[in-house]
Amino acid sequence: MAVKIGLVGTGTVGGGCVRVIQAHKEDFKRNLGLDLELARVCSLSPDEAIALGVGDLFTNDYNEIVNDPEIDVVIELIGGTTVAKSIVLKSLAAGKHVVTANKALLAAYGAELSAAAMEAGVELAFEASVGGGIPIIGPMKHSLQANEVTSIMGIVNGTTNYMLTRMAEEGIAYDEVLRQAQELGYAEANPSADVDGFDAAAKISILASIAFQSRVSQDDVYTRGITNISPLDLEAAANMGYAVKLLAIAHRTEEGIDVRVHPTMIPVDHQLAKVNGVLNAIYVIGDFVGETMYFGSGAGSFPTASAVMGDVIEVARRIEQGIKPVPGIDPIMGCLEDRGLPIHPVDDLSMKYYIRFPVADRSGVLAAMAGVFAKHNVSVHSVLQRGQKENGTVNIVYITHVAKESAVNAVLAEIASLEDVLHGEPSLIRVEE
Amino acid sequence: MAVKIGLVGTGTVGGGCVRVIQAHKEDFKRNLGLDLELARVCSLSPDEAIALGVGDLFTNDYNEIVNDPEIDVVIELIGGTTVAKSIVLKSLAAGKHVVTANKALLAAYGAELSAAAMEAGVELAFEASVGGGIPIIGPMKHSLQANEVTSIMGIVNGTTNYMLTRMAEEGIAYDEVLRQAQELGYAEANPSADVDGFDAAAKISILASIAFQSRVSQDDVYTRGITNISPLDLEAAANMGYAVKLLAIAHRTEEGIDVRVHPTMIPVDHQLAKVNGVLNAIYVIGDFVGETMYFGSGAGSFPTASAVMGDVIEVARRIEQGIKPVPGIDPIMGCLEDRGLPIHPVDDLSMKYYIRFPVADRSGVLAAMAGVFAKHNVSVHSVLQRGQKENGTVNIVYITHVAKESAVNAVLAEIASLEDVLHGEPSLIRVEE
Repeated sequence: MAVKIGLVGTGTVGGGCVRVIQAHKEDFKRNLGLDLELARVCSLSPDEAIALGVGDLFTNDYNEIVNDPEIDVVIELIGGTTVAKSIVLKSLAAGKHVVTANKALLAAYGAELSAAAMEAGVELAFEASVGGGIPIIGPMKHSLQANEVTSIMGIVNGTTNYMLTRMAEEGIAYDEVLRQAQELGYAEANPSADVDGFDAAAKISILASIAFQSRVSQDDVYTRGITNISPLDLEAAANMGYAVKLLAIAHRTEEGIDVRVHPTMIPVDHQLAKVNGVLNAIYVIGDFVGETMYFGSGAGSFPTASAVMGDVIEVARRIEQGIKPVPGIDPIMGCLEDRGLPIHPVDDLSMKYYIRFPVADRSGVLAAMAGVFAKHNVSVHSVLQRGQKENGTVNIVYITHVAKESAVNAVLAEIASLEDVLHGEPSLIRVEE
Repeated sequence: MAVKIGLVGTGTVGGGCVRVIQAHKEDFKRNLGLDLELARVCSLSPDEAIALGVGDLFTNDYNEIVNDPEIDVVIELIGGTTVAKSIVLKSLAAGKHVVTANKALLAAYGAELSAAAMEAGVELAFEASVGGGIPIIGPMKHSLQANEVTSIMGIVNGTTNYMLTRMAEEGIAYDEVLRQAQELGYAEANPSADVDGFDAAAKISILASIAFQSRVSQDDVYTRGITNISPLDLEAAANMGYAVKLLAIAHRTEEGIDVRVHPTMIPVDHQLAKVNGVLNAIYVIGDFVGETMYFGSGAGSFPTASAVMGDVIEVARRIEQGIKPVPGIDPIMGCLEDRGLPIHPVDDLSMKYYIRFPVADRSGVLAAMAGVFAKHNVSVHSVLQRGQKENGTVNIVYITHVAKESAVNAVLAEIASLEDVLHGEPSLIRVEE
């Protein structure tokens, strides 16, 4: 019996999924005995469906998929958290299995989606939501399941990794590299989701939920982007033996879950430091397996479609075998019970900091800043002037010893309040050894 | 209901499995609702079982596990292809699911083991057989299943990677680094399985079987080890911008499957070139996903136990859900039908070669060798003398243009037959761009 698929979204990833089915439909039959039938395709654009050769399956009304009793699996690839949420919830309620790449939706409404899938006794699969084509959800839920995961560190946003790589290798300024990334289609016209770290935050919230058997939502993730990073910072980091990456981090601590996204210095010989351009890589450390890493294309039509269709095949196999999800297992966390581990507030963390202050080039500034660091007990390892003096502004770089986040924030706030000192936003980079 | 486990083998990996169960038994219950009960432990050494705290479960007769109707899953961790084969076949015949890390057994008797598991309608799981703790079998069989895999390239033997890394970084001679690896427990007293490439050959035969839906056995793998590699070669490679790794390679070609293990030069900026020491990494390229890589500890007690116990949990989950394997799906290849793709003979391949000849330091040698290369139409890119003259021997390094393997072999055979030319085994390294 054919497994009937309703595809919602014919953009980059949706188009890739159509291509996978067209290329490998006969292979899936021969190898796995699975007949995947694309039954209906919903899109705002009939032209996209026609261009993909599936114009005959086109509808612009997703209800024709959600309400079609013949359809077994709905693939949601429109993104966003409004219409997509309706489509997913209605599909689940109608007893359809759902495969999605929608990290924002999962990170915002994980509990609601999980409850709906469990209530309906259907699958909710989302390998493509993190790391594009890279197998990461599957390995965490299966191959690594004998472990207690202690840490995840990932480069999970290709746009910002591309920008940081170009800034580091060629010294191109932030605004210029963003413009080029937009021209190449790596960054959107409104780049906020990428450059402000929100996309990475959604992804790490999903990984942390699985790793720690606790519902972590996007709001739980301390999130800072790369908008204040300048080639000066990357050069300074390189001189110190570090690469700067926008890392998504989740650590299990004694106090709970430390989960955050921010520009991070990592030693140049760390495996993640060598992951450049639009590529993604995710480090997962487990108590028995030790360090593992997963590397590949974190976005793009074909890689992401590979992950989506891997899920569809898995779901189809279970449909054909008559297997229902294990009752009570949350489809996102992959466990019976939300352990409810608390979020370890960033303010309580201690680490080393790199902070670059664009300040007034006048006497007294350095002394005033030194006083602020001393007042808040933030011990300084080194102070250096970086780059050229420009229009009365110089860049002063502080490297701290291990300091408490709350104390560093107090330093930043107080320096910002000093008269005629700061000439721009400081660039703050945390150091992960 | 508890899932009852019979463990055969209490060495490095078996001990690790006991530790996983002891550490996480309650976690598996809480998170997954699975009660894993270690019911019986078979070993030649009661002392090992006692030291692990499972002396009460000890037997030295594996038949007490194989014939125990209470036992659901047998973990085979004794290695080798004789007694292990009996244990696995008897367990399968008795309707028990089998989890094994035994690459040599799978690579030699894959067809027989698969047939026995299918006949009995039970699982045969083997994530730990390749890459130790690294999830690789799972990703290939699940997350990547929407792809046609085109290439696999892996560093899958930690012993030889450790030796090559030390030789490259410190210039230590082969014999000395082998001695040190043996002292550290990285290499066995008889190191042949590692240094001659047989362990890697078994592993790539398993991965190729899955990737290409064709039974590839260890005998199908062209296998060369690292015994002729000297620090001279690693230094020469580094000067040319290459690292030397013992790669396990499987490519899908128009003619079939190109599968081999041999020392290989790869560009230093390739992700695999940066994998050093005992670590393993496997590159998998699929037609949709593009390049992916999996990295971690390829051996050792805890990492390998992580993979074994991940399989045990997966099997336990299926037992609890009453799920049988899909009839007709070969448990090793993961597909219904052996496509029977032919092995593409190495002799027909063409690539670039690095060849170092230890030769007599006398006039006429270079001219004689040049004549042999010319006679067999192997075009030479460069010829260099490397290292110091010693006891009348000099090392002459040839880099060829792309040449046919059969022609290069003819060159080697003819140079070996020349009177008073060769003073030792040539070192041959293939170049993978």
